Amino acid sequence: MIRDIKDSPLYKIVNPQSVAFFGASNRFTSMGSNQLNSLISLGFEGKIYPVHPKETEVQGLEAYQSVLELPEIPDVAVMVLPTGVVPGILEECGQKGIKGAVIVSGGFKEVGQNGARLEEKIVETANRYGMRFLGPNCLGVANPHHKYNTTFLPFVGRPGFIGMASQSGSFITQMFDYLAEFDLSFSSGISVGNEADIDIIEAMEYLTVCPHTRVIALYIESIRRGRAFVETARKIIPHKPIVALYVGGSEAGKRASFSHTGALAGPDKLYDGVFRQSGVIRADTITELFDFSWVLGTSELPGGNRVIVQTHSGGPGATAADACSRAGLDLPTFSAKTLKKLEPYVPHTGSANNPVDLTFTKNPMEYFDNIPRILLEEPAADMLMIYFMAPKENIKRAMASMGIAEDQIPALSDELFDGQAQAMVTLGQKYGKPVVGFSFHSRTNPMLQKLQAYQVPALPSPERAARAMAALVEYAGIREEIKSHEDL
Amino acid sequence: MIRDIKDSPLYKIVNPQSVAFFGASNRFTSMGSNQLNSLISLGFEGKIYPVHPKETEVQGLEAYQSVLELPEIPDVAVMVLPTGVVPGILEECGQKGIKGAVIVSGGFKEVGQNGARLEEKIVETANRYGMRFLGPNCLGVANPHHKYNTTFLPFVGRPGFIGMASQSGSFITQMFDYLAEFDLSFSSGISVGNEADIDIIEAMEYLTVCPHTRVIALYIESIRRGRAFVETARKIIPHKPIVALYVGGSEAGKRASFSHTGALAGPDKLYDGVFRQSGVIRADTITELFDFSWVLGTSELPGGNRVIVQTHSGGPGATAADACSRAGLDLPTFSAKTLKKLEPYVPHTGSANNPVDLTFTKNPMEYFDNIPRILLEEPAADMLMIYFMAPKENIKRAMASMGIAEDQIPALSDELFDGQAQAMVTLGQKYGKPVVGFSFHSRTNPMLQKLQAYQVPALPSPERAARAMAALVEYAGIREEIKSHEDL
Repeated sequence: MIRDIKDSPLYKIVNPQSVAFFGASNRFTSMGSNQLNSLISLGFEGKIYPVHPKETEVQGLEAYQSVLELPEIPDVAVMVLPTGVVPGILEECGQKGIKGAVIVSGGFKEVGQNGARLEEKIVETANRYGMRFLGPNCLGVANPHHKYNTTFLPFVGRPGFIGMASQSGSFITQMFDYLAEFDLSFSSGISVGNEADIDIIEAMEYLTVCPHTRVIALYIESIRRGRAFVETARKIIPHKPIVALYVGGSEAGKRASFSHTGALAGPDKLYDGVFRQSGVIRADTITELFDFSWVLGTSELPGGNRVIVQTHSGGPGATAADACSRAGLDLPTFSAKTLKKLEPYVPHTGSANNPVDLTFTKNPMEYFDNIPRILLEEPAADMLMIYFMAPKENIKRAMASMGIAEDQIPALSDELFDGQAQAMVTLGQKYGKPVVGFSFHSRTNPMLQKLQAYQVPALPSPERAARAMAALVEYAGIREEIKSHEDL
Repeated sequence: MIRDIKDSPLYKIVNPQSVAFFGASNRFTSMGSNQLNSLISLGFEGKIYPVHPKETEVQGLEAYQSVLELPEIPDVAVMVLPTGVVPGILEECGQKGIKGAVIVSGGFKEVGQNGARLEEKIVETANRYGMRFLGPNCLGVANPHHKYNTTFLPFVGRPGFIGMASQSGSFITQMFDYLAEFDLSFSSGISVGNEADIDIIEAMEYLTVCPHTRVIALYIESIRRGRAFVETARKIIPHKPIVALYVGGSEAGKRASFSHTGALAGPDKLYDGVFRQSGVIRADTITELFDFSWVLGTSELPGGNRVIVQTHSGGPGATAADACSRAGLDLPTFSAKTLKKLEPYVPHTGSANNPVDLTFTKNPMEYFDNIPRILLEEPAADMLMIYFMAPKENIKRAMASMGIAEDQIPALSDELFDGQAQAMVTLGQKYGKPVVGFSFHSRTNPMLQKLQAYQVPALPSPERAARAMAALVEYAGIREEIKSHEDL
């Protein structure tokens, strides 16, 4: 395991000061042009050198006919070129002295034997020049903290904390707007493609020492170095959680991933075993991969699996209780002390059981402060799951009928939601217990936006919240176990 | 089973011409005020008579001190009153000659024995006057086609096709904005509460004859009349699909639903059996309940469970294939004829297997017309699952670089998405096969908005799409089976 980020072969590929770009032009119907534009539009602060056989200017940048003409040795070469051209260009890059490359071009191992031979050739070339590269058949890197994005889609959102290494480039570039809706994003997203040189394990090592990464997310179609994967993961787990999605287990998934990256997937149970041995939390879907990352990257670690559900609506409470049960979480009953403390807050139409159902409360701050405080103080509870519902029209009307002037309502609403979101963060930290919410609102809801800004995870359904909380419990347990082995 | 909607005891409660409203004032911190406002703000076209002991005007409407003073006999009385007041007011409504009521007030059977006695009393009163009522402990009705909404939250979106009967009012009123994001909505949503009089079975019967309802969605914490449920459902299934969510199966779910509606939930397996016998499709979560309703309400019925997955990205293709396998759907291999026809459209970096992975296509219309046409013509396929990705910035740039003037791009983009969405509808109908999409985009994406407007279901993940397609297969099978029994 590396200790210094600069020791990673990915360091300059993920954080370059200068980029040679092959395969971009001024026509935006080509992939390469879009990828160069992603880099420019994010405001990359280093130098970009488009290399193009004919154009003298590409997307407003001075273009060069050959990499050999560049005024400096760039940190990385990004290639979005026809398959057959790649070996020659890579050779030239080696001659120039470039030490890192991103080979986006497909048509290698994933298409059959001829492609595989070509792939061997580029590995040989890279080795000869001491170059390290990502790909081929990848999309490269998105590192929003460095304003660096070589992928197909323009980056949207703010830099985040999810460090992703993926055998699918789509699950990086096509997730920007998905994640941005939840105010989430990548610290760095690394598309490893066919892994002819740098593989997913080296990417995991990089993300472990990356200061922006709080959780490592993996999309896996095949693990090529099984033992190294297990050993590396176990070294990472005490420091950062790892979540993985593996889809090669089903017959159809296996066939699909073979034609995707040329990797032979193994049986589902084998991978399940590898993940368990590694201490890696397995997600069943891409949605779960990011849900788990969200909650693991923002929450305290729980001491056990006991959850209190707080709600003001019976149906959401019942579905949350059911979801917790299915996810293997327990709903403890309350101590007499907690029941006593809750008494003044629960109306006669509500329920002081678990789930706590407050029905209609007149003072909305109680829901965000006094009540969760009592619940977090309950010694039988390790976590709090809370339902968020903020009907903005109703709140506006309530404010107006309290005599608040129309023009003051937006600012006051904002203040209200701000206070509520802050209270959630403060309480979670104070009691050292995870507070995870769920809500059916659209992400345009102002309260959800506040919660997200304060990094209070509020998932789109009770099931997703419960599954993510179970992942949190699993990680807390695995971490302890691996640490205790290390101490021996 | 009723045949005419007017024979349902719910007809006037769901489609009233006039409403007496109890428990609303000008203070919006009360539930009743919010509920009256929901009715007014939707533009209800009938008469509304607020009844209030002190106010002469409530929310701009003339108020009456007693129901006995009203100038006509309203079709329905909506009561959001303190528990103890309900019996007396109901008595007065009976005297006035009102035949329908919505009793929102809680504090009855769900809170214990005293409440149960009070509930018996109101049933007795209603019976005496030949009144029928919803509740108590419910939120009443949202019928957007009639501009009628008695629930807590203002209605948003367009009237829809999901007929819901729910033992949780929250799963009607708190779902308005959730559903609107997908351009979905209720035909009518009926909150049945404690079902002291009208129960969920009568609501199902109403929805069966409701012309706006294409699919019936149920949220169930307990079925009180088991045999009637099975018999009624089996009569409905040949005409309309029924989807149900039951959460009382787990220990925690059972406890939660008891304190919610005072109903004793039965073991999960028992309910599973009841649903199977009834021909009701069971959803595991509230998200699934609406996903299934969406796809069942918009799609052709499939002849079997064989799916072709169409994508231009390897990762989404592999996860879709995996999701189909898990959902019990098969991914057939293609006939030689189909392979031949696909040849010109699949680049050498892509895959003509199932999933079809087109990678980067230069002509976006092919993805929406020529290619799905070939796939739908494949005799080994019953359904098409298609990945939707429309990066608007990239599309804009591509158009600009083709020489299209900046100010023409928005209209042209709109036309493009319109054509693509229309093509999807046309193809599905032409081949009589379901076409179900999935996309990770936010619902603000212009292509998704078009697809939704044309009622092409595009679910937020491959797993959700696969599960909904499996529900479609299940319904097609059950429907045939029940119809064949009927024919005997």
